Amino acid sequence: MIPRYSRPEMANIWSPETKFRIWFEIESHAADAMAELGAIPAEAARNIRERGGAATFDVDRIDEIERETRHDVIAFLTHLAEIVGPDARFVHQGMTSSDVLDTTLAVQLARASDLLISDVEALLAAIKRRAIEHKFTPTIGRSHGIHAEPTTFGLKLAQAYAEFSRCHTRLVAARAEVATCAISGAVGTFAHIDPRVEAHVAAQMGLTVEPISTQVIPRDRHAAYFATLGVVASCVERLATEIRHLQRTEVGEAEEAFGKGQKGSSAMPHKKNPVLTENLTGLARMVRAYAMPAMENVALWHERDISHSSVERMIGPDATVTLDFALSRLTGVVDGLVVKTDRMAANLAQLGGLFHSQQVLLALTVAGVAREEAYRWVQRNAMRAHAGEGVFRDLVEADEDIVRTLTPEALASAFDDKAHTRHVETIFERVIKN
Amino acid sequence: MIPRYSRPEMANIWSPETKFRIWFEIESHAADAMAELGAIPAEAARNIRERGGAATFDVDRIDEIERETRHDVIAFLTHLAEIVGPDARFVHQGMTSSDVLDTTLAVQLARASDLLISDVEALLAAIKRRAIEHKFTPTIGRSHGIHAEPTTFGLKLAQAYAEFSRCHTRLVAARAEVATCAISGAVGTFAHIDPRVEAHVAAQMGLTVEPISTQVIPRDRHAAYFATLGVVASCVERLATEIRHLQRTEVGEAEEAFGKGQKGSSAMPHKKNPVLTENLTGLARMVRAYAMPAMENVALWHERDISHSSVERMIGPDATVTLDFALSRLTGVVDGLVVKTDRMAANLAQLGGLFHSQQVLLALTVAGVAREEAYRWVQRNAMRAHAGEGVFRDLVEADEDIVRTLTPEALASAFDDKAHTRHVETIFERVIKN
Amino acid sequence: MIPRYSRPEMANIWSPETKFRIWFEIESHAADAMAELGAIPAEAARNIRERGGAATFDVDRIDEIERETRHDVIAFLTHLAEIVGPDARFVHQGMTSSDVLDTTLAVQLARASDLLISDVEALLAAIKRRAIEHKFTPTIGRSHGIHAEPTTFGLKLAQAYAEFSRCHTRLVAARAEVATCAISGAVGTFAHIDPRVEAHVAAQMGLTVEPISTQVIPRDRHAAYFATLGVVASCVERLATEIRHLQRTEVGEAEEAFGKGQKGSSAMPHKKNPVLTENLTGLARMVRAYAMPAMENVALWHERDISHSSVERMIGPDATVTLDFALSRLTGVVDGLVVKTDRMAANLAQLGGLFHSQQVLLALTVAGVAREEAYRWVQRNAMRAHAGEGVFRDLVEADEDIVRTLTPEALASAFDDKAHTRHVETIFERVIKN
Amino acid sequence: MIPRYSRPEMANIWSPETKFRIWFEIESHAADAMAELGAIPAEAARNIRERGGAATFDVDRIDEIERETRHDVIAFLTHLAEIVGPDARFVHQGMTSSDVLDTTLAVQLARASDLLISDVEALLAAIKRRAIEHKFTPTIGRSHGIHAEPTTFGLKLAQAYAEFSRCHTRLVAARAEVATCAISGAVGTFAHIDPRVEAHVAAQMGLTVEPISTQVIPRDRHAAYFATLGVVASCVERLATEIRHLQRTEVGEAEEAFGKGQKGSSAMPHKKNPVLTENLTGLARMVRAYAMPAMENVALWHERDISHSSVERMIGPDATVTLDFALSRLTGVVDGLVVKTDRMAANLAQLGGLFHSQQVLLALTVAGVAREEAYRWVQRNAMRAHAGEGVFRDLVEADEDIVRTLTPEALASAFDDKAHTRHVETIFERVIKN
Repeated sequence: MIPRYSRPEMANIWSPETKFRIWFEIESHAADAMAELGAIPAEAARNIRERGGAATFDVDRIDEIERETRHDVIAFLTHLAEIVGPDARFVHQGMTSSDVLDTTLAVQLARASDLLISDVEALLAAIKRRAIEHKFTPTIGRSHGIHAEPTTFGLKLAQAYAEFSRCHTRLVAARAEVATCAISGAVGTFAHIDPRVEAHVAAQMGLTVEPISTQVIPRDRHAAYFATLGVVASCVERLATEIRHLQRTEVGEAEEAFGKGQKGSSAMPHKKNPVLTENLTGLARMVRAYAMPAMENVALWHERDISHSSVERMIGPDATVTLDFALSRLTGVVDGLVVKTDRMAANLAQLGGLFHSQQVLLALTVAGVAREEAYRWVQRNAMRAHAGEGVFRDLVEADEDIVRTLTPEALASAFDDKAHTRHVETIFERVIKN
Repeated sequence: MIPRYSRPEMANIWSPETKFRIWFEIESHAADAMAELGAIPAEAARNIRERGGAATFDVDRIDEIERETRHDVIAFLTHLAEIVGPDARFVHQGMTSSDVLDTTLAVQLARASDLLISDVEALLAAIKRRAIEHKFTPTIGRSHGIHAEPTTFGLKLAQAYAEFSRCHTRLVAARAEVATCAISGAVGTFAHIDPRVEAHVAAQMGLTVEPISTQVIPRDRHAAYFATLGVVASCVERLATEIRHLQRTEVGEAEEAFGKGQKGSSAMPHKKNPVLTENLTGLARMVRAYAMPAMENVALWHERDISHSSVERMIGPDATVTLDFALSRLTGVVDGLVVKTDRMAANLAQLGGLFHSQQVLLALTVAGVAREEAYRWVQRNAMRAHAGEGVFRDLVEADEDIVRTLTPEALASAFDDKAHTRHVETIFERVIKN
Repeated sequence: MIPRYSRPEMANIWSPETKFRIWFEIESHAADAMAELGAIPAEAARNIRERGGAATFDVDRIDEIERETRHDVIAFLTHLAEIVGPDARFVHQGMTSSDVLDTTLAVQLARASDLLISDVEALLAAIKRRAIEHKFTPTIGRSHGIHAEPTTFGLKLAQAYAEFSRCHTRLVAARAEVATCAISGAVGTFAHIDPRVEAHVAAQMGLTVEPISTQVIPRDRHAAYFATLGVVASCVERLATEIRHLQRTEVGEAEEAFGKGQKGSSAMPHKKNPVLTENLTGLARMVRAYAMPAMENVALWHERDISHSSVERMIGPDATVTLDFALSRLTGVVDGLVVKTDRMAANLAQLGGLFHSQQVLLALTVAGVAREEAYRWVQRNAMRAHAGEGVFRDLVEADEDIVRTLTPEALASAFDDKAHTRHVETIFERVIKN
Repeated sequence: MIPRYSRPEMANIWSPETKFRIWFEIESHAADAMAELGAIPAEAARNIRERGGAATFDVDRIDEIERETRHDVIAFLTHLAEIVGPDARFVHQGMTSSDVLDTTLAVQLARASDLLISDVEALLAAIKRRAIEHKFTPTIGRSHGIHAEPTTFGLKLAQAYAEFSRCHTRLVAARAEVATCAISGAVGTFAHIDPRVEAHVAAQMGLTVEPISTQVIPRDRHAAYFATLGVVASCVERLATEIRHLQRTEVGEAEEAFGKGQKGSSAMPHKKNPVLTENLTGLARMVRAYAMPAMENVALWHERDISHSSVERMIGPDATVTLDFALSRLTGVVDGLVVKTDRMAANLAQLGGLFHSQQVLLALTVAGVAREEAYRWVQRNAMRAHAGEGVFRDLVEADEDIVRTLTPEALASAFDDKAHTRHVETIFERVIKN
């Protein structure tokens, strides 16, 4: 997480101020529940809630205490006692640090998920607008980077729409994985705390109850979460890569919008580079990489060890902030994308209709030619056209085997462009609801 | 995928014979649909279905043809033509190789998922049986590898049960991600094939229709799938690691069952090593690693490239076969696990009740001592006990500050063992339904 | 490791036959050394050497014994006893299985390294030949996929040559990392075996002595090894990606050679796809992924555990066989690469000399214009040329600010092509020695 | 890179101030070389060197300019012009941003390497001291977490010493990989800049000349670098894991030093947890993960794209700062490690000499018993001893087969402890030079 690739709202989730505020809320809600259960005085719980609720926690002071105690939660509780006074001794009763830390991480990841989900929604809206705009903009489809058959630019975007719709579903599921609350005490047995405290805190913090914790919330949840972020980042990379390809000089079918004062190259003033999508490619590599340590975190020793903590202090912010930035940047790129329909048309025409080869092949097999034979007839003309020895249609119309087999009508129909767009609406209906 | 770590049912999913059989089924169902639509003769479709259905495909012959054509689907279709005769020209009409290959992979991954899901079910059954058996077997809970407070061995297993229940849910979701059918032709436009063919094949093969494919089924689905397998493998590692810890000489609380003729060490005949769970640790590393290339596969170029193919030829079998083997091995380990309740009891007693320290701490704060102060009082006695300077309870009962503060009843209650097991049923009800 | 991506010589290193042969050699050399030291009868050592040396080990028989003992080395020793007779009891004296297994892995990885090193040498030879052939073939250099300034195709290849020269160096270092011999007995103390046995076996097997083993050879060595393979694979991916880009329809500057009977697409006969380099891209993803579990293998528990073993049974063959195949395939691609100098020339001309912009910029600053000012003058003309409003040189020659500043000679010199190739020889001399 | 896991000296390498200072130095040295070659006025070069050298670059001002130009190097050059005046137009002549950026990264990584190398040296010194201190401290060696045979604590540390010695060698090699200088202009052809400028800058900055760059320094160098850091981190994890194991309650053979005010647990005051080594385990996971995106960075498109940049902005600091912190923390842990020789002795005695089983086995085979037979004899007694049915030596001395075979002297010798330490000096001489 570096400022260059951060947006404030997501970064704030990970600030010390936010963290201590959530810690306080958990402790305070727990105290309320304990008071309700008669475990601590109601007066104390109210005092904690009111004085702590009104206070601003002093991050520097907490850090100072932590330097002595080398324990962050104890440092916070000590500072809280400075604010609340003697009633502070009723805070954290029967709880363990992990109750606070893990539930806090759940809150942070849930909030981060909410931002990511709305990022994806904004991206989907941008893609949808451009997809509908270019629903019937013809463009060459490419397999292996080689011209295959025509498609439309809208279909390209509709695919991205479907992909990010799946990401939306995945993020919702990932959020549910991690949005759990554990207030179960040492090794998770509720030996010193009533399970109803957990239920109360969960409800107040918008979480579900962790069915069984062992002091810590099990880390398979977080592994699933960060793995999902890695998958979403990979989808970002796919669309970014498509745009990078479209912008390359020889293709020139789309371009990232270029700001007014922006400079493409310190040495070559003519260049308009797809730097945003290249940047997204790199960011995707990072978010993907964070899935690995999250998976290694699962196998904690016995009821818990703390090896996961340093990992999560890093990937918690790094993965969510980076993906949030990436999704937002991608939305901007899609929104502003300069689509060059003339270049699309020109590229489409480049191979002289060679993409009709499959239609010719089909016409021949329908006319009774064995598939292997038909393939050879078509390929020999395709290869000649590809080698620049003529326009494909002319060559086909001069091929004795083909002409002998197909009627002029069948041949004409094989060179009909409409085939390629006749199901565009069908596909759009499947993926983009208007 | 190596024989040592393979089980036949899963391995068979990935055999050439299975693959060609699925290829044939897809082609034959597609032909049926085309016949129904009048695109090819009904006679031809029946002929294909019957002759192909009765035939055994000759893997060597197909390989031989592929060596010439360097194209696996064309090689298969050529061989199919040798079986079916002239009607074979109606096979694969308007389709592209990816229609067959990707839909086949979907069938294979769906079948693999079914096995993995039933593996997890078998594992859950084994864990459940042992968890109930040891619901109240007391054992020390450990954080950081250090004795913390008591728990039960049943709770340890209940946590594993909850974890693998989540894995079950994840595998069901992962199966749905990949179980889609695409028969959409070159670049996915249905230019030469009716979408109803796709719908028919999907229904026959037990798949859902891929809403939008671009010749290939989008690889974010597979990335999500293999990432899920990595998470499940990490859960395998967690339980395996727990058992490895429990079996170590100094702990000795559980042991993998040791076969009759089995030898522990070529040099040291006395050793009984947790080799199965160590093996599972290694296998988990592998399955986890396969998630990375699956994520890198997402960003195919334009409508498709074939870089994903070599990855999937490897991780398709490797990840599923290895995880199937690992889950099955883990089930066997859990089933046969030798649980040493005497060692559990002995270890529990090892620190002389030091684990009651938190109860003492709580009693002190309830009695009005500030948390910080109480912590210091308890810690000084805990440290002395830990250093072997006496039994914790004795030291506490001799501590003037503590004795002055707590009534004898409060002190006795702080050393009561029952606190640690009073919520075992509560937790079991949350995770293991009887 | 699957047959499709395997070459026999590398695959054979990992066959059971090879493995048992190496096991025997280690045991036999160890016996010789023990006999020399008087620890066992000389007669026994000779008997072992001669009978074992002449025998073919029966893999099925060893597997059969292993199924009972569940221990591979004991199974082998039992089979060896069937061959050698009573003297077999002198085999493996004071040794532990790991002495045999780890030293065998060292031999296998050393042999694999030798193949990989010679693969890289073959690749370097192919690249060198093509680099010299095209040393002065002009082609556009591209940054961000956008035309930048001219370079030569030879320079592109010279960069690949330098990169694989570094890979050569890395593989030699990686080989040295793993080519060590440990015959140190249980937990590595030489309690029951003389260190001179280790020295003898090391010398005979072409290895160096592992300075300190703890029953196992430390796995940081293997981590470094497989990480190196991942780096080399990433270099394979770079050159493969370059070729994929060059072959795309709109660029068309190079093409993988296309076999006679080869079919590009089952549906589109005209297509010539860069399938080999796409395949290499996927293979690189796999080899890279194997580095992760190799690194996780380092932290074995105490003196050793066996979690590394399953990983190495898989990545040992998988990583080396796949990289061997990939390097060999890349060599074939480079050797046969169809270089289209006409398309290179055409692409170079596409932007009408826009790539001279930097020269104009430099001429202006030399003439005293502030860099910022000069940049703006050049950029406005570059942008117009890029937008199709004229040829860059014409626009520049009509720009009043520029014309006022530069002499006609300075302007002409700024459009001189030779600048871009004047240091080609300099660079070649740095990286490719003739 | 987060403050909690950062040390200032390493963090400073990555500060904006350091970066801009290096940028300036490169530009200034390049200007000097150009002046020497007559390409720009000597007066200008001196002016640049002196004014820039005396200036403090205003990070906020540069950021402000970058927000408009969206180009960091141009922003810096603009700010430099504000400082230097009109002569600034001679700065960066014929260069491209990458010349500055990549050479700067080389300087930063070289400096980071120097810190890491000295970190390893400090760690080696600490390990050596403790290894010599405990050269002959007996302790049980463990394989699979199970007692195997005795070793010494010094040998455990000597293994770590050897491992980090290898890491030292690897870091030196990794430093050489990345410490190269490229000043080759657009697409690396030296079209607008003399190669002698590069040579001069390289010499001044303490780098070697990059033999061939393509505007960027090839990223296989950085991949090798970060992969090496991942291997070193894995070695950190190994030693950290060893200590975690030794500190667990039941083992108790070593302990991290516990600070005076430190609190082990907010709930359980008696606990002394190995939190530093657990933390190191997590940090190792992170450093290892960074190797993946570094490898994915290798395959830049054509002469360069900028996808590597965002990755390196993150892993450059993150990997080096984290590893520096981890190495330093590990040094502190080793230095202060509380070694409990009494617990080592007690654990060693725990199995009642069962570890002599191999010596008995050897004695039997030397006495002529077939290995298989001898193994069975020993195993039956070992198993009984392990099951608590008696002390191993007593059982052996009561075994009729064994007593019949071995002389009392041979039997006594098989229970001699000295065998296990007789080669300690031999091994120390191999790895730790005094």
